[in-house]
Amino acid sequence: MTERLVIVGGVAAGMSAATRARRINKNLDITVYEKTGYVSYGACGFPYFIKGDVPEIEALLIRSPQEFAAQGIEVLVQHEITAIDPAAKTVQVTNLRSGRTFTDHWDRLILATGGQAVPPPLPGIDLNGVFTLRTVEDALAIKCWIKEKQPQNAVIIGGGYIGLEMAEAFSAHGIRVTIVEAQSQILPTIDADMAVHIEQELRAHNIELYLGHKVKSLDGDAPLRRVIALTAAKVNGHDAASMVQAATRQARVRAVLTSGAGFPAEMVIVGTGTKPAVEFARAAGVEIGLFGAIRVNNRQQTNVPDIYAAGAASEVYHRVAGQSILLPLATTASKQGRVAGTNAAGGRAHFSGIVGTAVVKMFDLQIAQTGLTEKYAKYFGFDARSATISATAHAHYMPGNTPIHVKLVYETTTQRLLGAQIIGKEGVAKRIDVIAAALHSGLTVYDLAELDLSYAPPFAPVWDPILVAANVASK
Amino acid sequence: MTERLVIVGGVAAGMSAATRARRINKNLDITVYEKTGYVSYGACGFPYFIKGDVPEIEALLIRSPQEFAAQGIEVLVQHEITAIDPAAKTVQVTNLRSGRTFTDHWDRLILATGGQAVPPPLPGIDLNGVFTLRTVEDALAIKCWIKEKQPQNAVIIGGGYIGLEMAEAFSAHGIRVTIVEAQSQILPTIDADMAVHIEQELRAHNIELYLGHKVKSLDGDAPLRRVIALTAAKVNGHDAASMVQAATRQARVRAVLTSGAGFPAEMVIVGTGTKPAVEFARAAGVEIGLFGAIRVNNRQQTNVPDIYAAGAASEVYHRVAGQSILLPLATTASKQGRVAGTNAAGGRAHFSGIVGTAVVKMFDLQIAQTGLTEKYAKYFGFDARSATISATAHAHYMPGNTPIHVKLVYETTTQRLLGAQIIGKEGVAKRIDVIAAALHSGLTVYDLAELDLSYAPPFAPVWDPILVAANVASK
Repeated sequence: MTERLVIVGGVAAGMSAATRARRINKNLDITVYEKTGYVSYGACGFPYFIKGDVPEIEALLIRSPQEFAAQGIEVLVQHEITAIDPAAKTVQVTNLRSGRTFTDHWDRLILATGGQAVPPPLPGIDLNGVFTLRTVEDALAIKCWIKEKQPQNAVIIGGGYIGLEMAEAFSAHGIRVTIVEAQSQILPTIDADMAVHIEQELRAHNIELYLGHKVKSLDGDAPLRRVIALTAAKVNGHDAASMVQAATRQARVRAVLTSGAGFPAEMVIVGTGTKPAVEFARAAGVEIGLFGAIRVNNRQQTNVPDIYAAGAASEVYHRVAGQSILLPLATTASKQGRVAGTNAAGGRAHFSGIVGTAVVKMFDLQIAQTGLTEKYAKYFGFDARSATISATAHAHYMPGNTPIHVKLVYETTTQRLLGAQIIGKEGVAKRIDVIAAALHSGLTVYDLAELDLSYAPPFAPVWDPILVAANVASK
Repeated sequence: MTERLVIVGGVAAGMSAATRARRINKNLDITVYEKTGYVSYGACGFPYFIKGDVPEIEALLIRSPQEFAAQGIEVLVQHEITAIDPAAKTVQVTNLRSGRTFTDHWDRLILATGGQAVPPPLPGIDLNGVFTLRTVEDALAIKCWIKEKQPQNAVIIGGGYIGLEMAEAFSAHGIRVTIVEAQSQILPTIDADMAVHIEQELRAHNIELYLGHKVKSLDGDAPLRRVIALTAAKVNGHDAASMVQAATRQARVRAVLTSGAGFPAEMVIVGTGTKPAVEFARAAGVEIGLFGAIRVNNRQQTNVPDIYAAGAASEVYHRVAGQSILLPLATTASKQGRVAGTNAAGGRAHFSGIVGTAVVKMFDLQIAQTGLTEKYAKYFGFDARSATISATAHAHYMPGNTPIHVKLVYETTTQRLLGAQIIGKEGVAKRIDVIAAALHSGLTVYDLAELDLSYAPPFAPVWDPILVAANVASK
């Protein structure tokens, strides 16, 4: 009898898994269930679609369900999984278009449910014009709102990667942007001393930046205010609550309020992060790790036989931290998906873990990190030190030179490299990858100083900024 | 009594050594002798000075003899060393300005004599307008010739790094360029299948390319022809020879001739490589290696006590080839200089070798290599295979995307990575450095496929071209 592989989630991890499983095993039945209306898309391209660099959303759609069908992979969009029965080896499926519910059988199951946006439960968070950015539908809604409402100003709640990219996208449309970040620095995933360069770049592009400001509520236009007044009068606790909710859905956002300030907002992006979508997995007895993601081994197997997990719903082994953590990134999802797909199809593959490499472009700045920041190195119990240098991206005499800032984090006792952050206007993304390769191999700062890095005047000084930083750290 | 360190040669290796020695040992007497009129310059910037990107030669001069004097380093330019006496610990010095000769004593000696251009002994090679590009004087002479003679065309003999950079520099001045290369491909330091991309770029910029064409002679204008006629008449063998030489020096180059063709040339660059300047070292009993360079250990010590060598005159240990070779590059020279300077000053340092990383920009193309090419891997006895892929430099949907070509060379039996070549219009230089880091650590292609490389749509596809190539090689 033909064996059956069911994959839940059709973005990076899910579709990598499906494609790989098909390649490994020609006889497998493969079905992918995806809750949204789209599969196999480049979610990292959304800010560029909203900005306008990518004019059509179709460009972000890598392969259609029809193309997967031609490969013998059945893809069902707008189908949500609501429960797993590991003993019976079934899933409960709801067709979101028809409302019909059915049971499907699997021999192997891959959970690639990804992350879900978690807007904080603030008053007014349901207002019209308040968006998260996670799905194709979100991206389309944001672009549509910009086009139809032509907002003059926008507030971005949260100064993480999405927040930075959206600041650039909004600016390109002439929208005045305010970023409100609860922590005392922008991009809290990097160290505060490096974040300063980003804050400068934001201000240079007239982005208003409120650090250490916690959003308390969002304010809407008239219909909302009226209903809130009713609620305050406590006419009827229960009814008023549902009336607020209904009115909120009709009302448009007008302002974002913190304890000390209010910011006009004709639209709002909530970029406060995602959490792994693990509800039905947890209910089925799939083990969830410390950080709320599905626990997997290096073959992407969960604790439940024949159930695998990959992507932003699952943990990933961080080679520098020496433990599994939650760090949802598209590259990791694709790699984990391949491994899960290979193993679920009867092949043999393992995932050796990540070092936590990420890069983002914001206006003219490139911001990259790998390994552990100084802050996180200490959090993970390392006796960590750092060396920070500023250099130029080219030989000093070349025209159009720009500064580049490198911070290396390393273990005090062993001099082992623990991480790096690089910020500059060019040559940042692939420079961080040099450090990523060094971290993968467990190099020390002495080893790093010995690397034979390329040199030509248009690309680097004779002593590449990485080597300069490594030399400082080696002292 | 104060000890005395003498350094022969004041460019990358020599001045790194001097600076480092001074930092290590405040009491050392340090004197640097340099044959040319300049020290401490960025020779790799010459093509950009000639092109005009760097308007003033002064920009390439990093520090002057006066600045070194302020650090307690005596620098004497236009001073040539003609002999070493290892027993007496002396050098014979000629002041090239005054002609005065003297003897200097040393306790430790560092030979940083570099490479010297070796124009092939062709008839007409002494003609006016025929240049090599090695020293500040050469760069000034070339730029001066362009300005004064306004040549319409130029021939570059040799399609190596200098040849490619000079093709771009001449084109920027509107000079029609012909490259004549004896081998059947451009840039013989890379594999022929990758060189094709460079040949396309050259042709796209209207550079005439003659591959597999060996230059037989250079032809000059009238005065030369007259004297050659005299010589042909064999009036007097000896006298005619010196007359030819004298007339050659006055005559201007007009053409470059191969066995089958002739190319008009109002100026010629001879870019056929350099050889280590080791004559007086060899005469003093300093051991010379297989490739004609000074043999050194990993502390940059020669076989003669208290004599060190660094830079293009010395060998360097190639970590992938597993043996010492000759590969003169500015980065290596600086690193070796530091090690030689440290050890000669009483410190302790070692040089762990190179992996052979180099990059060059030519028009819009970036051309990089590290480790061994497939050709050289076989030469060094490896059972080598390769995987070559073409990808895009950004996520496929981003505007202004460009192709990038990656060739990985690896050992068939162990899958150990042996080298890579990358060619594209962006993101090449630092991408080759990722491979350089991998080679330093002896990674396999499987390891390479697991690297956690950065991703954001403006910088790479989700699967970086390096990972795509590694996946192909892993199959």
